[in-house]
Amino acid sequence: MKKIGPDLKKMLTASREAASAAAQLSSPSKKKVLRSVASALLKEKKRLIAENAKDLSRARTEGLSPAMIDRLTLTDKRIQDMAHGVRAVASLPDPVGRVSKTWRRPNGLKISRITVPLGVILIIYESRPNVTVECASLCFKSGNTVILRGGSEAFHSNRALVAIFQKALKHAGFPSAMISFVNTTDRKAVDFLLRQDAFIQLVIPRGGEALIRKVAAMSKIPVIKHYKGVCHVFVDRKADLKKALNIAYNAKVQRPGVCNAMETLLVHQRVAPKFLPALGRKLEAAGCEIRGDKTTKRWIPGAVAAKPGDYGYEFLEKILAVKVVPDLETAIRHIQTYGSAHTDAIVTQDKKAAAIFKQKVDSSSVMVNASTRFSDGFQYGFGAEIGISTDKIHARGPMGLEGLTSYKYVVEGNGQVRT
Amino acid sequence: MKKIGPDLKKMLTASREAASAAAQLSSPSKKKVLRSVASALLKEKKRLIAENAKDLSRARTEGLSPAMIDRLTLTDKRIQDMAHGVRAVASLPDPVGRVSKTWRRPNGLKISRITVPLGVILIIYESRPNVTVECASLCFKSGNTVILRGGSEAFHSNRALVAIFQKALKHAGFPSAMISFVNTTDRKAVDFLLRQDAFIQLVIPRGGEALIRKVAAMSKIPVIKHYKGVCHVFVDRKADLKKALNIAYNAKVQRPGVCNAMETLLVHQRVAPKFLPALGRKLEAAGCEIRGDKTTKRWIPGAVAAKPGDYGYEFLEKILAVKVVPDLETAIRHIQTYGSAHTDAIVTQDKKAAAIFKQKVDSSSVMVNASTRFSDGFQYGFGAEIGISTDKIHARGPMGLEGLTSYKYVVEGNGQVRT
Repeated sequence: MKKIGPDLKKMLTASREAASAAAQLSSPSKKKVLRSVASALLKEKKRLIAENAKDLSRARTEGLSPAMIDRLTLTDKRIQDMAHGVRAVASLPDPVGRVSKTWRRPNGLKISRITVPLGVILIIYESRPNVTVECASLCFKSGNTVILRGGSEAFHSNRALVAIFQKALKHAGFPSAMISFVNTTDRKAVDFLLRQDAFIQLVIPRGGEALIRKVAAMSKIPVIKHYKGVCHVFVDRKADLKKALNIAYNAKVQRPGVCNAMETLLVHQRVAPKFLPALGRKLEAAGCEIRGDKTTKRWIPGAVAAKPGDYGYEFLEKILAVKVVPDLETAIRHIQTYGSAHTDAIVTQDKKAAAIFKQKVDSSSVMVNASTRFSDGFQYGFGAEIGISTDKIHARGPMGLEGLTSYKYVVEGNGQVRT
Repeated sequence: MKKIGPDLKKMLTASREAASAAAQLSSPSKKKVLRSVASALLKEKKRLIAENAKDLSRARTEGLSPAMIDRLTLTDKRIQDMAHGVRAVASLPDPVGRVSKTWRRPNGLKISRITVPLGVILIIYESRPNVTVECASLCFKSGNTVILRGGSEAFHSNRALVAIFQKALKHAGFPSAMISFVNTTDRKAVDFLLRQDAFIQLVIPRGGEALIRKVAAMSKIPVIKHYKGVCHVFVDRKADLKKALNIAYNAKVQRPGVCNAMETLLVHQRVAPKFLPALGRKLEAAGCEIRGDKTTKRWIPGAVAAKPGDYGYEFLEKILAVKVVPDLETAIRHIQTYGSAHTDAIVTQDKKAAAIFKQKVDSSSVMVNASTRFSDGFQYGFGAEIGISTDKIHARGPMGLEGLTSYKYVVEGNGQVRT
């Protein structure tokens, strides 16, 4: 095997150099490049599908699951969606160079806090090729350079997608190193890159928990991540049960395979006799398995007995753990113990209970009378989402363009010196 | 040697548990505890000085430098200053529970971004015992718990200071684990703590570059830091030379041993003949050594020839590297190449030059017509400073209480579900 270090070092150096230029790009330039990328995606649809076919054929030979093959597949519709996404990012307000605060000191100094890009961002992700396009667009829009390392199963698709960005950059007269692609499927490349804290400012892993844990364990560079979303809905004593039914159903069933879907439902004992039978019917009709404690089983005869490991587990499918709790405090303690600090909801008409829940549940998103499924950059109106963070450092919750920036202080005086 | 792991694990568990309680503390409670700490510092002055004497006697036996012994020494005046500092932190606005943004979505959801503490913060620092008091106050005020690991040379002093905090906490009915002290000078304790990313959210090292590099290299936990401050002042072609003289003198001489002091002066060639002789006289009269390039030496006869390593070097004493540059762009490139992205200044009356400098110099603080010495949390009006960050992740530049917080999103609805 060829040594990969020198090639990667060259890529890192180019990416760092391009980061200065990327930070200086004007808003119209960025918009123009992204729009030309969107057009090129549509124009080169055929070539993209041909490159994707190489990945698909290998995937079939290697016996990848139908779900993985589906995620990997590029279709006309999916390429159109990508192009649409890039145009949407192009139209977002530029997050760089914004004066987020400005104030004057008694000595006359004027201090401003101005947003700046982070620098070089490394994205490590799995099979879906649209992640390539999303991350490249968001990093570029936020004035960062990006190094993309996708899953080996999508190598040809990702390389072709990045080539479209690079061509657009070159055509506009900007360094193509603003968007770099790790041109090898060698796993050692990741180990190498994760040690390059002199070149890379931030790592964002996107994928399953195993990938994210591996990245976090190895990285010398700050990592923004969420391992999993074990989201709870608590139906309070004073819940509007019709709302609770809709919310619980939506949070579990609308899209069970995502991180903001509900995994555990907590029900106040006072409303359990009325709420659980209705919920059971509705969920069972949707093909959802219910794993409950004793009381749950009393009110939902079709429920199976929950094992201890079911609480705190991220099923990512139509399985729901249910527990009946004696009071709000017990519900909060359960969430603190078993939750993943991603998104947790209370359904209640009681303002005091809502206030206590909002205050004590320290999750990146806390919902009152709304589905956990709203925890999402688009739903929050960010116009984009690069990921969701359950960390508390730098960015938390759904991260849009703002999460990809830092700031600098600009201090303007008239000759002031310190005394 | 005794195994330290179990004791540290116990401390970490207690600190994490206390973090929940710390996050819920009311503003009046925090104020009250800090004020009682301030009083206790004054009341227990004698005991503090006695404990400090143990450290001093050991320091003398071990032959520590007079400068280090000075930094280590507690005096009546210094204890009064500490108490004053704690009172000042007590009076600052509470940074927790602030709604930093709130907006409504088309579907009626109300989204608020609310500040929350980070959790458990580890501070690793060197000899000055006042760092103990500053960091404990700021972490407590921001609703975090803190684990303090000071230099072994200040062990008795630090332990006595932390005991004052813990007594005040107990007296107020709060867990003393809100402010923890690493009760061993064993260096293995630091190695152990830096791997506890399941317990600790943030590490702030305060001290010399060697300490900070060691912490950053070993830590599995995010570290906020600056390695060094290689601050530049550029005297532009259109500088007001009187202001430039004052600023350069102040930035170098007022307190040469700190990270925001100037280390390199860049002078536009057009003003060098007029500016440098005056500067040379003023700096030489203050006992400052000048290391310059050829042109500098022509205009400052007492200057010695700069060696390549002098540019980009953090002298931290009355030594200044000087270089004459042909234009603004060269000055900016010099700063980009040799600077540490801490604080860099331009002196100019030319608004266009200032705008280019502000835009292109990507340092945590960029000064226009002001001394680099202003790069400081107090000078910026934060009322406090836990450190200065030259990183771009989480916090940058001088960090006050706001830098010790994160946020959560609270989403309030009326039964909304996703479609």
